[in-house]
Amino acid sequence: MTEKSRRGEHDPIRVGVFGARGRVGTQVVAGVEAAPDMKLVATVDVGDSASDLTEAGAEVVVDFTHPDAVLDNLRFAIDNGIHAVVGTTGFTQQRLDTVAGWLGDKPGLGVLIAPNFALGAVLAMRFARQAARFYDSAEVVELHHNRKADAPSGTAAHTARVIAQARAEAGLAPGSDATTSELDGARGADVEGVRVHSVRLPGLVAHEEILFGGQGELLTIRHDSLDRASFVPGVLLGVRAMLNRPGLTVGLEHVLDL
Amino acid sequence: MTEKSRRGEHDPIRVGVFGARGRVGTQVVAGVEAAPDMKLVATVDVGDSASDLTEAGAEVVVDFTHPDAVLDNLRFAIDNGIHAVVGTTGFTQQRLDTVAGWLGDKPGLGVLIAPNFALGAVLAMRFARQAARFYDSAEVVELHHNRKADAPSGTAAHTARVIAQARAEAGLAPGSDATTSELDGARGADVEGVRVHSVRLPGLVAHEEILFGGQGELLTIRHDSLDRASFVPGVLLGVRAMLNRPGLTVGLEHVLDL
Amino acid sequence: MTEKSRRGEHDPIRVGVFGARGRVGTQVVAGVEAAPDMKLVATVDVGDSASDLTEAGAEVVVDFTHPDAVLDNLRFAIDNGIHAVVGTTGFTQQRLDTVAGWLGDKPGLGVLIAPNFALGAVLAMRFARQAARFYDSAEVVELHHNRKADAPSGTAAHTARVIAQARAEAGLAPGSDATTSELDGARGADVEGVRVHSVRLPGLVAHEEILFGGQGELLTIRHDSLDRASFVPGVLLGVRAMLNRPGLTVGLEHVLDL
Amino acid sequence: MTEKSRRGEHDPIRVGVFGARGRVGTQVVAGVEAAPDMKLVATVDVGDSASDLTEAGAEVVVDFTHPDAVLDNLRFAIDNGIHAVVGTTGFTQQRLDTVAGWLGDKPGLGVLIAPNFALGAVLAMRFARQAARFYDSAEVVELHHNRKADAPSGTAAHTARVIAQARAEAGLAPGSDATTSELDGARGADVEGVRVHSVRLPGLVAHEEILFGGQGELLTIRHDSLDRASFVPGVLLGVRAMLNRPGLTVGLEHVLDL
Repeated sequence: MTEKSRRGEHDPIRVGVFGARGRVGTQVVAGVEAAPDMKLVATVDVGDSASDLTEAGAEVVVDFTHPDAVLDNLRFAIDNGIHAVVGTTGFTQQRLDTVAGWLGDKPGLGVLIAPNFALGAVLAMRFARQAARFYDSAEVVELHHNRKADAPSGTAAHTARVIAQARAEAGLAPGSDATTSELDGARGADVEGVRVHSVRLPGLVAHEEILFGGQGELLTIRHDSLDRASFVPGVLLGVRAMLNRPGLTVGLEHVLDL
Repeated sequence: MTEKSRRGEHDPIRVGVFGARGRVGTQVVAGVEAAPDMKLVATVDVGDSASDLTEAGAEVVVDFTHPDAVLDNLRFAIDNGIHAVVGTTGFTQQRLDTVAGWLGDKPGLGVLIAPNFALGAVLAMRFARQAARFYDSAEVVELHHNRKADAPSGTAAHTARVIAQARAEAGLAPGSDATTSELDGARGADVEGVRVHSVRLPGLVAHEEILFGGQGELLTIRHDSLDRASFVPGVLLGVRAMLNRPGLTVGLEHVLDL
Repeated sequence: MTEKSRRGEHDPIRVGVFGARGRVGTQVVAGVEAAPDMKLVATVDVGDSASDLTEAGAEVVVDFTHPDAVLDNLRFAIDNGIHAVVGTTGFTQQRLDTVAGWLGDKPGLGVLIAPNFALGAVLAMRFARQAARFYDSAEVVELHHNRKADAPSGTAAHTARVIAQARAEAGLAPGSDATTSELDGARGADVEGVRVHSVRLPGLVAHEEILFGGQGELLTIRHDSLDRASFVPGVLLGVRAMLNRPGLTVGLEHVLDL
Repeated sequence: MTEKSRRGEHDPIRVGVFGARGRVGTQVVAGVEAAPDMKLVATVDVGDSASDLTEAGAEVVVDFTHPDAVLDNLRFAIDNGIHAVVGTTGFTQQRLDTVAGWLGDKPGLGVLIAPNFALGAVLAMRFARQAARFYDSAEVVELHHNRKADAPSGTAAHTARVIAQARAEAGLAPGSDATTSELDGARGADVEGVRVHSVRLPGLVAHEEILFGGQGELLTIRHDSLDRASFVPGVLLGVRAMLNRPGLTVGLEHVLDL
């Protein structure tokens, strides 16, 4: 009997939150409480007992905690037939295999693990993959606040690799570039043949612009993340999706049904 | 026996052009001549005989002519087993049905009729359709030179309707708008619940920006068409696709395999 | 003897804050405390005595309070030889005249009253005024969160009027617009001949884009205000300027020495 | 007696063009012919005699020719009391001194030599200079077609130097940058402490974006040059200005009266 069959169609989804008092967890809690089709039934943080989730009848649990804690949390959730939506970092292939193994015995149960829950970032990446093979060339400009340590951002580097892969699959050669005189760094970083430029300024938050150029036209996909709460709608979407998506899903894009 | 089977895999596609001396036709001719996988074998304009196409062994013909001429051109192409790619305007449902009828007897033959061959415009519309249901609200800003007679542009109005339809299919209510005091026109035109704003300035060419807003984030899709030649890659893509896509196809998006 | 002459060149400026516990005042307090050339010496809010300012030897006081309180605050400051920087709203010409009158007897004393302390907004307006006469046409697009009640924003309407005035002074006719078929509202609001478009979306904060179009080129000035703290640098700049700018100054632009 | 005194206030300005059949000269000719306050009286190109200008009574001559020809052209113009507006490249300080020397004997005569006549580019540079000292940090992104040989563009590098100089004059330290892990080139080229990023894509023409970031806000100045004719209004403005601006003027910004 799946989770789905136990619940009425119009019952709110019973949601628990691991790491509920953390910076991210606090926003997940607020998001679940504001969602008309969900009910927050348990919050668990350091010092609390995970059994609060089972006692409260949680159907789905959200985990934004720590790499050291997340596997224990997932083990508990899966053992107790609770779906999970996980934004905690540190999932190597080995860790993903472990979780998939645990799910092997639980045919109705779903776990979503994703590095990025911002819908706009996920959609931008998807659209970049779709557009890549139709254009002569593509570049990425990402803009972040000046406290960021890495350049380019992980998202921008990943976007560039996705574009490079889509171009390679379509048999496209690298975009032509007539630059013969360059001041060091002007043309950006080369990520598998796709140029990536990193702007750092106070006042900026997190922004990514993907530019495709062809004969007489440009296509630009831009994502602006202006508030840390931007990941909440993606988490709620993941919670809803897990009720009907058994097994391990890696990446929010797979639950978007694009 | 289809066109495909008659030709070697590495033979260039033999292309003819109706309206070859027109403003658009001239650029189609240049595009075909520059394409390494095509060979321009015949150009036909007012005063020329369509039989030039058959004599030259054209496999595909491109038609950017006039609503008064295009049906005769298509009749000739279909009768002679020549695929067609058509950008001429004026195709009512009745006209489309007529062409589909003619194709009924020609199982291997393909005709593509599309209102817009600019890849960026077609992709932007497609991405707008995909993104629409994930956002609380969407608006469209289109920017054109100040010689344009209609506001909003046909493309922007169509984009707004596509977004409205995708939102309706997903059961979304109209985006909330707290405006209580408005100077007439400030909030733009209402196209099925999606606001559309038209900027007109000398110096602009043709630009469209589709903005989606959600919790703490924005997704923007922008298309800039800076040169009339921007439709050429879409036409060439249509030419290639027709070799393997029998029947009537309406809209370039269907041959993009997105 | 002016304030300036009483203080050593390297002494920090002694700053007091009226409305120190308010939403805006809290950020002014934080800004003053973080400024290396200032010292926060007194904070006054409802229930506190203004004499805290004189006892603490405040040289400049900042006022972001309420139209009902600000004149009493200013009277006290001026009577006690304290410069003032005021962001409180509600200053009619009559009120400005009253304050100017009070300052008539205090030759060394300066008061700055400004509707907007965001440097970017003030600079954008200034640049718009400078650029206006060089272009055939101009339009304004402002984008705000969807909880905003008025459209267009006060800033955008003011910007449009500034452009219209600069164009009129240069003898320019209204920008040409060939629109003959318009869906109601598409071309935006008409503010003295300058079109203004208001986009409203969740996820947006406060953004203004001023577009100038001429032969084959565009000039765009954009201001993004992403955080309420964006007015703080302008306030600090006003505090520094008042030490050497006697009399009443209306508008931050006058202390920028552009 | 100056040129001004010889002409009626409402007489059209009598304009001649050196290099009238060149790519740029052709557009200057068209621009002069379309200007209601000017009359094209002489066009001179290779093989023509410069005396056509004097015979036709030219008051101002425009020169977009070649470094090898421009000094002879200017010598002729100055000897014959004709003002000049010059866009030809190759003016070293020595050449400028030579021209200034020739003008020493001609008190009423004006010559304008400028590297850039695009009003938007000149205004953008000017605004960048004005804004620079109010912001913690600034970066430049320039975007050009992929046939461009140098990166960054000369205009972008010059803009960065102008910003660096304005910051230095205001005593600002370099903008802070927390980057500790950088993929080579991601942070762009360092031009006197200002980062410059060069995007190259087919479909682009010539675009420059200057970004200033401060506490919670951004100011962006963008110039899009979409057509080579964009320099024409600046040339016409220079022609008008020379009637009343004796001596050598270097740079269009000086005749804009900003």
